[in-house]
Amino acid sequence: MWHYLDGGRDTPTGRGNRAALDAHPLLPRPLAEVRGGHTRLELFGETLGHPLLLAPIAYHRLQHPDGESACAMATAAQDGQMVVSTLASQPLEQIARAAEKPLWFQLYWQGSRERTARLLERALAAGYRCIVFTVDAPVKLATSPLPADVRPVNTEPPLPRRLQPDQSEVFDGWMAEAPGWHDLAWLRERVPVPLLIKGVLHAGDAVRAVDLGCDGVVVSNHGGRVLEVAPAALSRLPDVITALGGRVPVLYDSGIDSGADAFRALALGARAVLVGRPYLWGLAAAGALGVAHVIRLLRDELEMCMALCGCATLADISADRCG
Amino acid sequence: MWHYLDGGRDTPTGRGNRAALDAHPLLPRPLAEVRGGHTRLELFGETLGHPLLLAPIAYHRLQHPDGESACAMATAAQDGQMVVSTLASQPLEQIARAAEKPLWFQLYWQGSRERTARLLERALAAGYRCIVFTVDAPVKLATSPLPADVRPVNTEPPLPRRLQPDQSEVFDGWMAEAPGWHDLAWLRERVPVPLLIKGVLHAGDAVRAVDLGCDGVVVSNHGGRVLEVAPAALSRLPDVITALGGRVPVLYDSGIDSGADAFRALALGARAVLVGRPYLWGLAAAGALGVAHVIRLLRDELEMCMALCGCATLADISADRCG
Amino acid sequence: MWHYLDGGRDTPTGRGNRAALDAHPLLPRPLAEVRGGHTRLELFGETLGHPLLLAPIAYHRLQHPDGESACAMATAAQDGQMVVSTLASQPLEQIARAAEKPLWFQLYWQGSRERTARLLERALAAGYRCIVFTVDAPVKLATSPLPADVRPVNTEPPLPRRLQPDQSEVFDGWMAEAPGWHDLAWLRERVPVPLLIKGVLHAGDAVRAVDLGCDGVVVSNHGGRVLEVAPAALSRLPDVITALGGRVPVLYDSGIDSGADAFRALALGARAVLVGRPYLWGLAAAGALGVAHVIRLLRDELEMCMALCGCATLADISADRCG
Amino acid sequence: MWHYLDGGRDTPTGRGNRAALDAHPLLPRPLAEVRGGHTRLELFGETLGHPLLLAPIAYHRLQHPDGESACAMATAAQDGQMVVSTLASQPLEQIARAAEKPLWFQLYWQGSRERTARLLERALAAGYRCIVFTVDAPVKLATSPLPADVRPVNTEPPLPRRLQPDQSEVFDGWMAEAPGWHDLAWLRERVPVPLLIKGVLHAGDAVRAVDLGCDGVVVSNHGGRVLEVAPAALSRLPDVITALGGRVPVLYDSGIDSGADAFRALALGARAVLVGRPYLWGLAAAGALGVAHVIRLLRDELEMCMALCGCATLADISADRCG
Repeated sequence: MWHYLDGGRDTPTGRGNRAALDAHPLLPRPLAEVRGGHTRLELFGETLGHPLLLAPIAYHRLQHPDGESACAMATAAQDGQMVVSTLASQPLEQIARAAEKPLWFQLYWQGSRERTARLLERALAAGYRCIVFTVDAPVKLATSPLPADVRPVNTEPPLPRRLQPDQSEVFDGWMAEAPGWHDLAWLRERVPVPLLIKGVLHAGDAVRAVDLGCDGVVVSNHGGRVLEVAPAALSRLPDVITALGGRVPVLYDSGIDSGADAFRALALGARAVLVGRPYLWGLAAAGALGVAHVIRLLRDELEMCMALCGCATLADISADRCG
Repeated sequence: MWHYLDGGRDTPTGRGNRAALDAHPLLPRPLAEVRGGHTRLELFGETLGHPLLLAPIAYHRLQHPDGESACAMATAAQDGQMVVSTLASQPLEQIARAAEKPLWFQLYWQGSRERTARLLERALAAGYRCIVFTVDAPVKLATSPLPADVRPVNTEPPLPRRLQPDQSEVFDGWMAEAPGWHDLAWLRERVPVPLLIKGVLHAGDAVRAVDLGCDGVVVSNHGGRVLEVAPAALSRLPDVITALGGRVPVLYDSGIDSGADAFRALALGARAVLVGRPYLWGLAAAGALGVAHVIRLLRDELEMCMALCGCATLADISADRCG
Repeated sequence: MWHYLDGGRDTPTGRGNRAALDAHPLLPRPLAEVRGGHTRLELFGETLGHPLLLAPIAYHRLQHPDGESACAMATAAQDGQMVVSTLASQPLEQIARAAEKPLWFQLYWQGSRERTARLLERALAAGYRCIVFTVDAPVKLATSPLPADVRPVNTEPPLPRRLQPDQSEVFDGWMAEAPGWHDLAWLRERVPVPLLIKGVLHAGDAVRAVDLGCDGVVVSNHGGRVLEVAPAALSRLPDVITALGGRVPVLYDSGIDSGADAFRALALGARAVLVGRPYLWGLAAAGALGVAHVIRLLRDELEMCMALCGCATLADISADRCG
Repeated sequence: MWHYLDGGRDTPTGRGNRAALDAHPLLPRPLAEVRGGHTRLELFGETLGHPLLLAPIAYHRLQHPDGESACAMATAAQDGQMVVSTLASQPLEQIARAAEKPLWFQLYWQGSRERTARLLERALAAGYRCIVFTVDAPVKLATSPLPADVRPVNTEPPLPRRLQPDQSEVFDGWMAEAPGWHDLAWLRERVPVPLLIKGVLHAGDAVRAVDLGCDGVVVSNHGGRVLEVAPAALSRLPDVITALGGRVPVLYDSGIDSGADAFRALALGARAVLVGRPYLWGLAAAGALGVAHVIRLLRDELEMCMALCGCATLADISADRCG
């Protein structure tokens, strides 16, 4: 479980994420007027207390028996948001109920439009208010076997795969079940709520997704868990921001470990960030209370960075606050 | 106590300070005429034997029972200066008497103008000849509990704080007691002696402070003790020097560990430097004699660097002596 | 044997090879259409299943009693190619038979044209389809003594060497037996099959070799085994590619440890890569099956990198896929 | 003794020397014609077998009872040159006899012209053919106490020093006994043989020395033994070379550990190099034979680098052979 929890940190990609964040010092601006400041933001029609969203991560019950529901409760209590994973270890309806407010749902392509549509309809019926379509992990990494009582309860069994001897497991197996740009267009028509695309690093891909109707883009390299030699996600953020020119909100995901990291991504133009491993540590240590504590710590850190850098609101966080 | 003494060195800010200093090698210039050279300077009307000031540090009695008085005696004996901290662990009048000459006083904002004025008046009455107003630490770091016999004896008890449940401890608590630019203007009118601002990293802030009447600027990131992800202070020094164009003396503080470090800051334009941790080590090891020994060592190192680089006086130390 | 197997990795050259490869992250391009993709290529008239050739390495029987023949079998089974070393520890005819298809032969200069011609004729008679002439190792490194049952079985005994007391072992000994540009011209006339030159790092040398009729160039620093302070081979690849302007295929050798490394070299313009140490590890661990397993792993990695970066064929791998 | 032998390597200056050398990879040029190549050079009227001079180092008898005489014998046997230190632990006449050929003498200023002249006359009388005047160590580093049987036998006792209480040991003590530019001019008139200046890092100083009549310049930071924060000596070599424009030979000293290092310095324009610690290791291990062995190893390495990079003579070693 530790391997899963910490996976991807000590890869070239993971170290690159850390180094790219560290390369941006924060520039203090004393004596500025920041009394009454706050971290509130408006995001897809909802007012959030802070821009620290819980990233979608599979199988929370690997860390704690209360699983995703514990995180949902903590999220709501801390006035935040959570992106529930397709690979959640509890029924998505149960998680939705635990939150007592509409959450976001992360959608993996399910190998075909029919299978994908069934999962999507279920999430929409449960009241999820945003769909985050993850596109950067078409090839599943080999994972450790799951304990008997932890499994992906929201997805249908994998499709049987029949390859000819001279066919490639990658090109003719995995990629035959991966989505394409046409599938994104198809999905857009079936999603009546805001649709975000997650896992984009190339500015051209971000523009194409927005041209197809996406309402938001999540710049991410999956925290280093997929391609171990991908570029640091932060290094690609400015290009994406520039190419989109403010058409839709851009969120940042990958390597956020502190309030200072969140400040850095916001300073480079992200509207909000997704936090991954830190809240899982809280979950493993103390369930819902642990998650709530981690969110509060990160928010306090963000507030301190803002106060020291003379930023009363998120709108004040700009590139010239970062070296 | 070691934690306090060494705090901030092994943070990104602390390591950045070290790396920025190390990035400047000193260029030897043999055969130059430096006989009769010296390290004297004129600073705010006083002639000092050398430009190595003792930086303000809280609670000297954590390191040695003789506390700030020991440092004051050593400073005077070594023909230097000392900036006594607001958070001194001995009465500021007692420290002033130990020095047998007027010292400088470092002032923290005390949460309100009335409280700040009371502390200021007391320091002026005790004969302190310069006021160094520190502005970069409005948010106090959580600190270890103090031993029973060590406490800030010169300040009034903290103001009671009443926050509403939805208020931020940072924005509505700490920052409500932090000073603003208007408070600096107010302070300037009440300080009849030279007033320096300490904790500036942004050239625009330095100019604004001088426009408001400050007599000197101390470029500092608080030695890495406040914001752990601040830029290296030395990296900001040239911008500040250039923006001020010689209107007032600029001093450098953060990471000075040797005479070579002092030479580096002077070569980049600082008029003098503040030394922190090294003299605390001397204090912890041997009281006043230890502090005097450290000052003498640093001065010898500075003299050797000057001699090897062909500088007979501080005025000869220029950027082209540093790579 | 481990020393030989791992030699050259922990030299400045070896570390430089690794660092130069790592400096190129791979840029994921999700949602691209790559179904039915493949790694096939046409190379000197032969269709290969993938661009991962086995590099020439001496004395395979140091690693496994089945020696070069095991590698030849694995190569053929995995639809690849192998460059058999002049210093093979089995007769080159035996290796050729094990492959059940024509392999490539790596040729070292044998001290004179007569001796070299005899070895070349033997390789051609055995059906080798390409000759790879290695020019970067005229000075043999001191090597550990070989076990009694491992020796270079395809070469004639070394020429006796008679130096005058004031002669240099390097200039008058080794280099007197090293080939020159005239020898390459001579060789070109005697090689009726494709002739590649291996061990070129300078663009001018590559052009000169092609002007003399070489059909291909292998950019290589011998994996760090010859000159310990040579530049990273990858750092020289773009210059060579540009200078040759597509006249002949350029192959890359030195430091390839993974499918991602192969992708990097291909993205910078190499047509194929030579893999060295990884297949020797497979040979040492499990003979022919071990070598086949390593080739398959590397190919799977290459396919995953291609799929994640949106490349259906090798022709899609271009510099803008690499950061 | 180990401390003295290895001193200065693990300082910023020493590490900088190593890093600056390592930053220059050597570019192999196979197939070039180098048969009959050699490392001979003409230097101040003498033909040397190779450009690897023994640098002046104090107190050889710390390493071996045969002391400087052993090094002198090894130097002559290996067809090289040696710069005997002012601080030699054997009489300079005895060392000269051991060499059976004229050596070079390194001269430290002796605190006054009279004292310096006496030492110079003695060296000239003993037949030393070049004088190397070291100017970068006016401040003697604190050194470990010497064993009873090792001392500087060629120098007069130190001058008594009388400082007033307010005088600086550096400026009024050491530097009062240090030479100036006028002393160099004075020295030039008294030296009838070639005079080199050693310890120059600034191009302007090199030009000034040659304008005053010096016949050669040794770029050096004293191997990191004097100013611990000096720039890498190699980083200053190109400026000096350019500024002098070929008027006199420039030699390089500091951090040469291998034949590849010598090649690097030669490629940047040095005419010869001074080797320090490596020959002391040889002396400590095996006396004269050890020193001879080290010289031979370094020369073999240099020859191999030349052969692999296509250089038949030292004149072929140019900047484009180094990356």
